[in-house]
Amino acid sequence: MAGERKQGTVGIFGTGDFGRSLGLRLLQAGYEVVFGSRDPKNSALVPKGSKVMTHTGAAQMAQVIFIAVQRDHYDFLTSLTPALEGKVLVDISNNLKRGQFPQSNAEYLSSLVPGASVVKGFNTVSAWALQSGALDASRQVLVCGDDPKAKQAVVDIAHSLGLSAQDRGSLGAAGELEDIPLQLFSNWRLPLWVATGLTAFVLLYLLVHDVTYSYVEKGQDNFYRIMISLPNKAFPIVALIMLALCYLPSILAAILQLHNGTKYKRFPDWLGRWMLCRKQLGLVALALASLHVLFTFVKPIRYYFLHRKDTGVIEQIKENITEPFDNTEAWRSDAYKSLGVLGFAMFLLLGITSLPSVSNALNWREFHFIQSKLGQLTLVLCTAHTLLYGWDKFLQPDRYHWYTPPAYMLSLVLPCAVLVLKFIFLTPCIGLRVARIRRGRERPGKSRSEHATVPMDKATSL
Amino acid sequence: MAGERKQGTVGIFGTGDFGRSLGLRLLQAGYEVVFGSRDPKNSALVPKGSKVMTHTGAAQMAQVIFIAVQRDHYDFLTSLTPALEGKVLVDISNNLKRGQFPQSNAEYLSSLVPGASVVKGFNTVSAWALQSGALDASRQVLVCGDDPKAKQAVVDIAHSLGLSAQDRGSLGAAGELEDIPLQLFSNWRLPLWVATGLTAFVLLYLLVHDVTYSYVEKGQDNFYRIMISLPNKAFPIVALIMLALCYLPSILAAILQLHNGTKYKRFPDWLGRWMLCRKQLGLVALALASLHVLFTFVKPIRYYFLHRKDTGVIEQIKENITEPFDNTEAWRSDAYKSLGVLGFAMFLLLGITSLPSVSNALNWREFHFIQSKLGQLTLVLCTAHTLLYGWDKFLQPDRYHWYTPPAYMLSLVLPCAVLVLKFIFLTPCIGLRVARIRRGRERPGKSRSEHATVPMDKATSL
Amino acid sequence: MAGERKQGTVGIFGTGDFGRSLGLRLLQAGYEVVFGSRDPKNSALVPKGSKVMTHTGAAQMAQVIFIAVQRDHYDFLTSLTPALEGKVLVDISNNLKRGQFPQSNAEYLSSLVPGASVVKGFNTVSAWALQSGALDASRQVLVCGDDPKAKQAVVDIAHSLGLSAQDRGSLGAAGELEDIPLQLFSNWRLPLWVATGLTAFVLLYLLVHDVTYSYVEKGQDNFYRIMISLPNKAFPIVALIMLALCYLPSILAAILQLHNGTKYKRFPDWLGRWMLCRKQLGLVALALASLHVLFTFVKPIRYYFLHRKDTGVIEQIKENITEPFDNTEAWRSDAYKSLGVLGFAMFLLLGITSLPSVSNALNWREFHFIQSKLGQLTLVLCTAHTLLYGWDKFLQPDRYHWYTPPAYMLSLVLPCAVLVLKFIFLTPCIGLRVARIRRGRERPGKSRSEHATVPMDKATSL
Repeated sequence: MAGERKQGTVGIFGTGDFGRSLGLRLLQAGYEVVFGSRDPKNSALVPKGSKVMTHTGAAQMAQVIFIAVQRDHYDFLTSLTPALEGKVLVDISNNLKRGQFPQSNAEYLSSLVPGASVVKGFNTVSAWALQSGALDASRQVLVCGDDPKAKQAVVDIAHSLGLSAQDRGSLGAAGELEDIPLQLFSNWRLPLWVATGLTAFVLLYLLVHDVTYSYVEKGQDNFYRIMISLPNKAFPIVALIMLALCYLPSILAAILQLHNGTKYKRFPDWLGRWMLCRKQLGLVALALASLHVLFTFVKPIRYYFLHRKDTGVIEQIKENITEPFDNTEAWRSDAYKSLGVLGFAMFLLLGITSLPSVSNALNWREFHFIQSKLGQLTLVLCTAHTLLYGWDKFLQPDRYHWYTPPAYMLSLVLPCAVLVLKFIFLTPCIGLRVARIRRGRERPGKSRSEHATVPMDKATSL
Repeated sequence: MAGERKQGTVGIFGTGDFGRSLGLRLLQAGYEVVFGSRDPKNSALVPKGSKVMTHTGAAQMAQVIFIAVQRDHYDFLTSLTPALEGKVLVDISNNLKRGQFPQSNAEYLSSLVPGASVVKGFNTVSAWALQSGALDASRQVLVCGDDPKAKQAVVDIAHSLGLSAQDRGSLGAAGELEDIPLQLFSNWRLPLWVATGLTAFVLLYLLVHDVTYSYVEKGQDNFYRIMISLPNKAFPIVALIMLALCYLPSILAAILQLHNGTKYKRFPDWLGRWMLCRKQLGLVALALASLHVLFTFVKPIRYYFLHRKDTGVIEQIKENITEPFDNTEAWRSDAYKSLGVLGFAMFLLLGITSLPSVSNALNWREFHFIQSKLGQLTLVLCTAHTLLYGWDKFLQPDRYHWYTPPAYMLSLVLPCAVLVLKFIFLTPCIGLRVARIRRGRERPGKSRSEHATVPMDKATSL
Repeated sequence: MAGERKQGTVGIFGTGDFGRSLGLRLLQAGYEVVFGSRDPKNSALVPKGSKVMTHTGAAQMAQVIFIAVQRDHYDFLTSLTPALEGKVLVDISNNLKRGQFPQSNAEYLSSLVPGASVVKGFNTVSAWALQSGALDASRQVLVCGDDPKAKQAVVDIAHSLGLSAQDRGSLGAAGELEDIPLQLFSNWRLPLWVATGLTAFVLLYLLVHDVTYSYVEKGQDNFYRIMISLPNKAFPIVALIMLALCYLPSILAAILQLHNGTKYKRFPDWLGRWMLCRKQLGLVALALASLHVLFTFVKPIRYYFLHRKDTGVIEQIKENITEPFDNTEAWRSDAYKSLGVLGFAMFLLLGITSLPSVSNALNWREFHFIQSKLGQLTLVLCTAHTLLYGWDKFLQPDRYHWYTPPAYMLSLVLPCAVLVLKFIFLTPCIGLRVARIRRGRERPGKSRSEHATVPMDKATSL
C-alpha cells in the first residue's frame, strides 16, 4: 500500500537480525535501503531490493544511518569519520545489564564520531515489532539527541514506519533509554513478593487453623475447602494488609519529619523505595480484593453451600421448628456486605484513576484528592467491613483453635494501627506542626548542616 | 544515578518552597543551580550544592531562569532588564482563583521584560511531585511560549527531571495553563450534585413508601433494609434517570434547531453546559449501575434472603403443597435479568470507550457510533429491564402505599419520554428536516441577522 | 472567555459547512477570519464577525489558509499561485473511499501550488467536534507536512482551539491521514463476524440439543431457557474457541517457519491478517466471557433455580431422605468454579494491559511476558475449567441427545489441540530448531532466492 511512495535513502551498518528486519520495514515504507558491510560481496541475507556496499559507500549515499552493530565493534567507525561528517547516526544498541558501561552507548558513539549528529532511538523496539506492527507495547520509539533536526529526521522515519515517537530530550538521556528494555516489572517485584509471601503464610495458617483442626479434632474431612473457601479468606486478609501498607509510609514519613523538624532531610532508603511502589502495592491489593469478590459471588452456586442450606431446612422440618427471623443478624449481615460493596467500589475507582491516561487527565489537586482522601475512605470502609464480619467472634473461646485466633483478626492489626495514627495526625496539636514543616519551615533549633544534600519529601499525601 | 552527568546551569529567582524543591531536583539531575536572592548572605535554606547570588549575578550565569516569586513581586524584574536580555524566563506561578487578573501572569512577565523569552510551564506540577516523581498525575509539564527554542530548552529540562512535557502552543495559552491547577472536578460537579440530590430523594421516598409504611400499617420492622435493599432500589432508579439525562439534551437541541430553522444559532447557556457534562453524567450513572449490580449479586448470601427462602419451603411442607412451576414467571424473571445483564455490559463498554486512551484510538465515526448508537441501545435495554421488572405491579392497587406509586415507576418517566421523542425524530417527516438543517442549510424564511454570532451545534449525536 | 485574546488572521477558502464551523470556532478563539469566495457579495452564511473577500484578497491578508473545498475544485488555486507564495495551506479534505486517487489530496495540492507550504490536518476532526469540543474522540488533530514551521503554525491553531495535536511526519503520510476517517472498526470486523457466526451456530445447536430435545422427547417446555441458560452456555463456548484462535496463528507460523527453514519468508496473506487481529479476537472473547460471568452470578436469584431448589428439598422431605454430602462433588464443584474465577481474572488482566495507555507504559519484554505467558496460562485455566465442568458427562450415553454430544465438548477441540501443539513446540528437539530460525539463522539447504521480498515474522510471541 505504502510501497509506492518515494522516500529518501537510509543506511544501515550491520546485517544482523535487527538490521535486516529494519531494512525490510524501511523498504516496505518506500525507502531506499543501503547496507554497509565489511564484505559486501558475501552479504547474502539482506532483504531483496536493498543494496549492499562498503561502509564508506553506504555512508555517502544516505543522510541517516542506523548503527546496527554492537558497542564492542564501534571503533571501526573512527576510520569513517570523514564520510560520516554531518550525517545522522542512530544508535539502536542495548546492553545486557544496567550500568554495564560508565558512558551510554550513544554518548560513546558521539565521542568516536564527533562530526556526526548522534540520535539514540529504536532501542526500545524489538525486531519482531518492527516486522509486525501489530502489538501496541513495542510501537513507541523513544528518541534523544542534541541536534533537533537530526532528531526530527529520526522521528519522521519512525512515523513513516507506522510507529509513534516521543522526544526524550538531549543525548544525556541515552543512558536512561538504554536501561528501559532491561526492566521487567521492576516496580512490581516488591509488591508481588509481599503479596505472595503473605498469601502463602495466611493460606498455611488457615489450613492448620480451619481445615486440619476440623480433621484432627472433629474428624471432618473439609479439605475440599482448599479450592475456594481458604483462598476466599486469605485474599481479603492480604488485600486489607496491603492496602494499609500503602498508607503506612506517609505516616512514618510524617513521624520522621516531626522528629527531624524539617522536610529537607532525606528519608532512609527503605522508606523511599517503599513509597515509590505504593501504587503497585495498591493495585496488587485491588487484584486480590477482586478475586475475593468473584469467589464470594460464586458462593451461592457452590455444591457445599447448596447442600448445607438443604440440610438446614430438612433439619428444621424434622425437629418441627422454624428459626425465627433474627433482626440483629439481618442488620449485621447486610451492614458488612454493604460496607464490603462500597469499599470495593471505592477501591475500583482508585484503580481506574491510576490508569495512565486517566491520571494524566487529572490535575494534581484532583489526583491527590482521589488517591489520598478516597484512598483513606476505602481503608476505613474495608476495615469496618472486616470488623463487622468478625462481630463478636473474637469473644467466643471456641473460635480460638489450638490457642490461635481466627485468621481475620490477623488482618485487622495493621489497618487499625494505621487508622489510629492517621487520627492522631488529624488532631490540631500534631497536625499543625506537621503542616508547618511541610510548608517548608524549619524548626528553629536545627542547624543548617543537618538538612540539605538530597532531601526527599514524599509525605504530602498524608 | 543520574547525578554524574554534567548538565548546564539553571537559575532560580526566589528561595520559597517550590524554588528550593525545584533546585534540589535539578541538582539531583546533574544541573548547576544558582539562586537569585535579594539578600544572598542570609539565604540559609537553599539546598547544599547550589549557589546563592544577587539576581543580576544569577542572571549572568544561567541561560534558563525559573521565576519562583509571586506575581505581586514581578516588578523588581524591570530593573534587571539588561541582565535578562535574551534569557529564557520560566513563569511557574499560579493564581488563587480563576480570572484573578485580566492578563495571564506569563504575559504580564513578558510585558515587563520584553527582551527575554518567556515560557509558561511547571505550574501544573506540585513541589511535592518534583521531589517524589512517584505519582503519575503530577508528572506532566505543560509549556507554552512564543519562542520555540526557549520552549525546547524548558522541555529538555522537564525531560531530564523525568517529567513528561506537552507543548500547548503560544504564550496566549498561558491563561488556560494557569487555570488548570485551580480546577477540582469542575465538569463533575453538576453530575455529582444531580446524582446526590436524586439519590437522597429516592432513598427518602423508599424509606417512606416501603419501610415506614410496613412499620406503621403492618407493624413489620424492616429497617435493616436501609443497608442494602433501599440503596439497591435507589441506585438503579437514579442511574436510569441520569442515563436518560445524557440523551435528552440532543433532543432538546434538535427541537430548538427545528424551531430556529438553522443550526447557526447559539443554544441557551444551560443547554450548552448540560451538553458539556454528558460524559460525566453517563459515568456517574455507570458507577451507580455498577453498585446496583454488586448489591444484586450479593443478594443470595444475605441473611434476610436465605431466611425467607427457608421459611418459604417450611411453609410449603407444613401446608403440604408444592408450588407448581410458573412458566410465565420463569420467562419474566429470566427476561428482565437477561436485559439487565446485557444493558449493564453495554453500559460498561460505553464507559471503557470513554477512557481517554481508548477514545483517542478511535476516529470520530467510530466514537460517534459507540456513544450514540450503542448509548441509545443501552438506554433501550435498561428501560426494558425496568419495565419487565415492574411487569404488572403498576396495575396492583396494594402496591400504591399511601397513594404513592412504587418507586421504580418514577424512574421510567424520563427514559420513556426520551425514547418516544427519539422515535419521533426517526420518522421521515421530522428526521429529514433535522438532517437538512444539520447539513448546514437554512430555512428560507429566516433572515440572515438571526443566526450568526456564536452558533453552537452540538446535537449531531442525536 | 478566550474571546478577548488577540490572535492572528486566518483565511478559509470555501464557505461550506466545515468552513463555516471552523470559522466560528476560530472567531471564538480570538482569531480574525477571512473567507475567500468566488462571489464575496453573495456569501450570506459566513459567521458574523468574519470578512468575505475574493480568494486573492483573502490570501493576501492571512498567513495560514484552510482549503475547505473539495479536491475536484482545487484547480482554481493554480491561478492564485503568486498570491499563495510562501503561505501555509492546510488541506482538510477527505475522500469517499480508500485509495480513491493515486496521489493523496494534500500532495496533489502541493503539486498545484509548489510555492506554498502544504500541511495536511484537521481532516480527522468533524465539523461537529469543532463546534462542541465536548467529546474526546474527535479532539485530536493529526498533522503532517514537509515544512516544520508551517506545521507548527497549524499545531498552534489547533492548540488555541482547545484541540490536541500530533505530528505524523512528512507530507508523504497524508494518504494515511486521509484514510483514517474512512475506517469503521476495520480490525474489529473479522473478530466480530467470527463471534457472531460462532454464537449463532452454538445457540442453534443448543436450541436443538437441549430445549427442543426436551420438548419433543420428554414433553418439557423449557423454552424460557432461551433468555439466560442458552446464552450462558453459548458465550463461554465461543469465548474459549476465540481465545484458542488467538494462539493458533503463532503455532501455524512456527510450523511454516520450520517448513521453510527461514523466518525471512512472507506468511500467506490470510495468516498475516489473522495475526493482525489477535488483540481484537481476544477482546471480543473477553467480552463474551464477561457476559458468562454476569449470567452465572445472576443464576442464584433466577426463578427457575430457586424453584428447583425448593422442589428438591420438598421431595427429600416427602421421601424422608437426606442426601449425604458427596465429597467428590464438593471437590469438583469448587475446583471448576475456582479455575473459572482464576481464568477470568487472568483474562481481565490481559484486557487491562491491552488498553493503549497501559501497554504504552510497558516495555516490550513486559508486554510480551503478559500477552504470551499469561495469555497461555489463561488458555490453560479456561480449558481446565471446561474439562472439570464436563467431568464425566462425555461418558454418559444419555447426554448424547439425538446422537450429538453435549455442546461444551465442541468448545474443547480447538483449545486442546492448541495446547498439545504448544507443548510439542516446548520439547527440545522442535523448540531449539524454531529458536534457531527465530534468531535469524537460515537452514543451509535453502538458496537465497527463496527468502527476501517482504518477509514477515510475527511469530515470536509463540
